[in-house]
Amino acid sequence: MDKTAFYKLTYGLYIVSTRFDGRDCGCVVNTLEQVTSEPPKMSVAINKDNFTEQMIEKSGYFTAVALTQDADIRLIGDFGFKSSRDTDKFEAYPFARDLSGIAFITQSVAARYSIKLTDKLGLGTHIMLVGDVLDAEVLGDGEPLTYAYYHLVKKGVTPKNAPTYQKPGAR
Amino acid sequence: MDKTAFYKLTYGLYIVSTRFDGRDCGCVVNTLEQVTSEPPKMSVAINKDNFTEQMIEKSGYFTAVALTQDADIRLIGDFGFKSSRDTDKFEAYPFARDLSGIAFITQSVAARYSIKLTDKLGLGTHIMLVGDVLDAEVLGDGEPLTYAYYHLVKKGVTPKNAPTYQKPGAR
Repeated sequence: MDKTAFYKLTYGLYIVSTRFDGRDCGCVVNTLEQVTSEPPKMSVAINKDNFTEQMIEKSGYFTAVALTQDADIRLIGDFGFKSSRDTDKFEAYPFARDLSGIAFITQSVAARYSIKLTDKLGLGTHIMLVGDVLDAEVLGDGEPLTYAYYHLVKKGVTPKNAPTYQKPGAR
Repeated sequence: MDKTAFYKLTYGLYIVSTRFDGRDCGCVVNTLEQVTSEPPKMSVAINKDNFTEQMIEKSGYFTAVALTQDADIRLIGDFGFKSSRDTDKFEAYPFARDLSGIAFITQSVAARYSIKLTDKLGLGTHIMLVGDVLDAEVLGDGEPLTYAYYHLVKKGVTPKNAPTYQKPGAR
């Protein structure tokens, strides 16, 4: 198997967040997608070790924003490589709260989706979370950031918990 | 809810295919993704009314190719808007067969993934199919076709069975 074939898949980059027990958490994901249109449902695959994933299962709600090309690499670093277990990631960035009270970043984002968790599917290291979209809004006209643009132009790296992570030099 | 927010999500465009009872079937999807890395698993959400989806459930295997920007709009039309129920879609295009005997298009594709179905999750109108990647290969150096490029540059349209379909003028 040539694992470099996985580099040919196309993704966006998103921050998924939730709030439980008075704590705001969030992390960067690339696997968010709309899976049905009537009614609108979205899904995301997240690592089970991820604190935000565990908090989403507890709260039953999650919110996602689509990042734009002008997103600061520091924002992606803070939300992608630190853990909400011991950091308030939202502290340093402008954010708002949606109808579920969940914090979401308001700068360098193209749109926001507020989702009520309805289904889960275990996938080994990861879990697929699916839910009904309660609300969605466009937040700007910035070009959505793709995973390819993040790697090629922004020279971004992939954290070990990502579905797309590959050991250096792995085939 | 502003449904135009869904246009800010990023996808690629893929042809997913299978073979059952001596018949080759395939269709265009945008929801293919890698969901775990160790071992590699992939998922795709497809409409339940879709003939290829029904045949994947019967065969237990599916194969996907990532289309490239130079893909003929006729290829996308044939695989995206016709049904394998009454058409042999592969007849008009160069194809090969993978280790599972499943046909896949070999022109205007960037990579191929051969998957063994392991899990299913019902999502109302659609179903999420998940499986282990048995084999993957790079098939060329063409730029992967994104859903945004398909709409903007190729002026492509979205079939009614797609997760992203919206009624004209719908909000």
